Amino acid sequence: MIQTSKSLAEILRVRREKLAELIDFPAILWSGSPSPRNFAANLFRHRPSSHFLYFAGLPLENAVIRLEGGKLQLFMDNPAPSSALWHGEMPSRDGIAENIGADEAYPMVELESHLQDAATIAVQDAASWTQQSQLLDRWVLPQRAPENIDLELAKAIVELRITHDEAALAEIRKAIAATVEAHKAGMAATSTAKTEAQVRAAMESVIMAHNMTTSYNSIVTVHGEILHNEHYENSLEPNDLLLADVGAETPGGWAGDITRTTPVSGKFSSTQRDIYDIVLAAHDACIDKISPGVEYEDIHLCACKVIAQGLLDLGILQGNVEELVDVDAHALFFPHGIGHLLGLDVHDMEDLGDLAGYEPQRERSSRFGLGYLRLNRPLRQGMVVTIEPGFYQVPAIVNNTQNRESFAKYVNWERLSQFGDVRGIRIEDDVLVTENGSEVLSIDLPTQGDHVEGLTI
Amino acid sequence: MIQTSKSLAEILRVRREKLAELIDFPAILWSGSPSPRNFAANLFRHRPSSHFLYFAGLPLENAVIRLEGGKLQLFMDNPAPSSALWHGEMPSRDGIAENIGADEAYPMVELESHLQDAATIAVQDAASWTQQSQLLDRWVLPQRAPENIDLELAKAIVELRITHDEAALAEIRKAIAATVEAHKAGMAATSTAKTEAQVRAAMESVIMAHNMTTSYNSIVTVHGEILHNEHYENSLEPNDLLLADVGAETPGGWAGDITRTTPVSGKFSSTQRDIYDIVLAAHDACIDKISPGVEYEDIHLCACKVIAQGLLDLGILQGNVEELVDVDAHALFFPHGIGHLLGLDVHDMEDLGDLAGYEPQRERSSRFGLGYLRLNRPLRQGMVVTIEPGFYQVPAIVNNTQNRESFAKYVNWERLSQFGDVRGIRIEDDVLVTENGSEVLSIDLPTQGDHVEGLTI
Repeated sequence: MIQTSKSLAEILRVRREKLAELIDFPAILWSGSPSPRNFAANLFRHRPSSHFLYFAGLPLENAVIRLEGGKLQLFMDNPAPSSALWHGEMPSRDGIAENIGADEAYPMVELESHLQDAATIAVQDAASWTQQSQLLDRWVLPQRAPENIDLELAKAIVELRITHDEAALAEIRKAIAATVEAHKAGMAATSTAKTEAQVRAAMESVIMAHNMTTSYNSIVTVHGEILHNEHYENSLEPNDLLLADVGAETPGGWAGDITRTTPVSGKFSSTQRDIYDIVLAAHDACIDKISPGVEYEDIHLCACKVIAQGLLDLGILQGNVEELVDVDAHALFFPHGIGHLLGLDVHDMEDLGDLAGYEPQRERSSRFGLGYLRLNRPLRQGMVVTIEPGFYQVPAIVNNTQNRESFAKYVNWERLSQFGDVRGIRIEDDVLVTENGSEVLSIDLPTQGDHVEGLTI
Repeated sequence: MIQTSKSLAEILRVRREKLAELIDFPAILWSGSPSPRNFAANLFRHRPSSHFLYFAGLPLENAVIRLEGGKLQLFMDNPAPSSALWHGEMPSRDGIAENIGADEAYPMVELESHLQDAATIAVQDAASWTQQSQLLDRWVLPQRAPENIDLELAKAIVELRITHDEAALAEIRKAIAATVEAHKAGMAATSTAKTEAQVRAAMESVIMAHNMTTSYNSIVTVHGEILHNEHYENSLEPNDLLLADVGAETPGGWAGDITRTTPVSGKFSSTQRDIYDIVLAAHDACIDKISPGVEYEDIHLCACKVIAQGLLDLGILQGNVEELVDVDAHALFFPHGIGHLLGLDVHDMEDLGDLAGYEPQRERSSRFGLGYLRLNRPLRQGMVVTIEPGFYQVPAIVNNTQNRESFAKYVNWERLSQFGDVRGIRIEDDVLVTENGSEVLSIDLPTQGDHVEGLTI
């Protein structure tokens, strides 16, 4: 799946040699198996564990790899002869072993005798984590934080996956290229589409045509204020803003993640333009700050300040910027974090809780305006992060009586009511931390928000 | 989700009153919950249990219904106040209860005190079947056949779901209408598409634009001889046949399931046309036979005979039709069954094994040519079945040395080799059994196979 000047086997060898520098015990990683939908033969399309994909390179099902001292052992059964009827000739264990540069390859039954002192990471599907738990004779559950050697393994993998090698970046660029194309198709479709579903279809169809899948359930909605809105039944009205948060995933599992907000009519109202420009200013300011060593939390706070200043200038907020951000007044309208790690998972390594996102000894803040920050580390060269400031009028927040009272000093609620046609705006790009600064990987997609005519698709 | 002249509550009331005529113990049905993809917050789109959908009507998550004596109790928790931030205002338990005509509605914690003597059916996701097992204090596993009162419940539900009421038919017609539209888009796209993935994208995008999902993983392939081919990476060559087996599913869960095979160039070769016409003749002959009381196995055997006769006429088979079918010579090229039940599941109620598909006391045949038949019952008015004959040159079958030898008398292997450009053909339609015969629900989609120009989309 990974195509660079190096062979897949060579890429994987380097990764596991780096792992061997960090741990002195064997690691065993499961690919997982597909989850059933409404009956056993009707399956959700299998998504292998990202940790498995990182070291095995191929989206296999029902396979296990064992890594020790830079060596790779593959455990999987050859396809049953009868499966050729239904699934065609499938690659054999030996063929796959050669492709990924495995040192040894065994049928699955041999796994049991190779488990001693091995660490693992829980996969998501129940059939597989049940097998992990049974074989290792301890509970390995996706909803439970890893402990002991499993925790040591998780930390080592975080250390590897948190910055991207050349092969990973090549894959991420492919995912982002397809994502950009999908957004362009979505913008072009918005002028004629009648429903959210039609724009979503135009976007995902581009991703599907590339033989990719979405890296998360698309958000394509005129109610951008519903942050995780995965419904598409609304019709598009001329005054609506359409928020599209859609990302492609390559067959090897690498993710793109981009958001654009565009006016259905092709032209912002003046109130929409006012708020959009604030979000865009925050977006640009954050990207300008990205550089190795910079604290991601400071980038988040930079966005908070730009948004607070913008809302102050519009008369929606009152007071001074420092105080507004200190009391989380900005978070009434920007309640989430500025972004997250991007890699094999769209929230990279979120299966490990905050182990990847948070520097050791750091914990989530209890502040409303900081608690949703998914990444709190100094940036490193080779990280890919999202930058995704937004402005939302979430009814549960801005209509909340207690908020109305406790922020009476900071918010001019009457002035806010003049911005009723701005329910939700977000602008999100994917950014690589480079040696001296940053590179916007999704640069091909315009951010100006309206005037989409003449878009090259 | 179901829109007919009757209200949803009225439709559901009739269904559970019919259930109450068949069982005298309570039935408790779980909706199930979404399965995680690569981390806990990245979920596969939830597909509720079909049995739940049949009696609850709405695609709810983490909900349970209890049916007894025609009464409906709903168990679900109201959304947490904090969920409004991420998911918007969600319908309350009481609102849903009113919509579906529940007699009572309780928070989930009350379920435990309403379980006595209740039967259930296992759902597919592990979180839910674990909860079923724990609460009912017995193993309720999707991969285990139901026993005792669970089996009685399963039989009663089969008796209800095996024929469709007016509301169900209205939903199935909607699913099929979107499916037909998707196939037309696919045919139109085939002339310009360069890859299978691009045709698949054109088809699924139509389904998505209707705010529907696919009822199974689409098969869109130039290698139709791989029966369950869920890959889309091949390029389209002018001499290829493209087999597209794609179906839409309505938001309420009702399925369509149609297959067409079209020449990439728009025009069959003479060998492709010869074989296509045989498959089409089998398709038409089977549909002509459909009527209440007719054995579905006889319809399967009708297809076998038409295919055997056609291949005999072409000189690929040798002998007489009765003998060829008796020795399963036809099954070398048509190894699967003629079709299956269609409803809330694309293979309706296949989660119950053969309980729905096979008349009591009947079992799968050990014959190669009959063992894959999914439905073996006399047809009844109100059933919807698929009719899907095919012709395939599966390498694992036709190149098998043992087959080559044991069928030497019946197959002219040299003559067969002249049909190398026919790897896989299938023609599938969805058919309602009516009072006196049948109605092809997918009639709007032409079956002639080529000359797709002028197609109205």
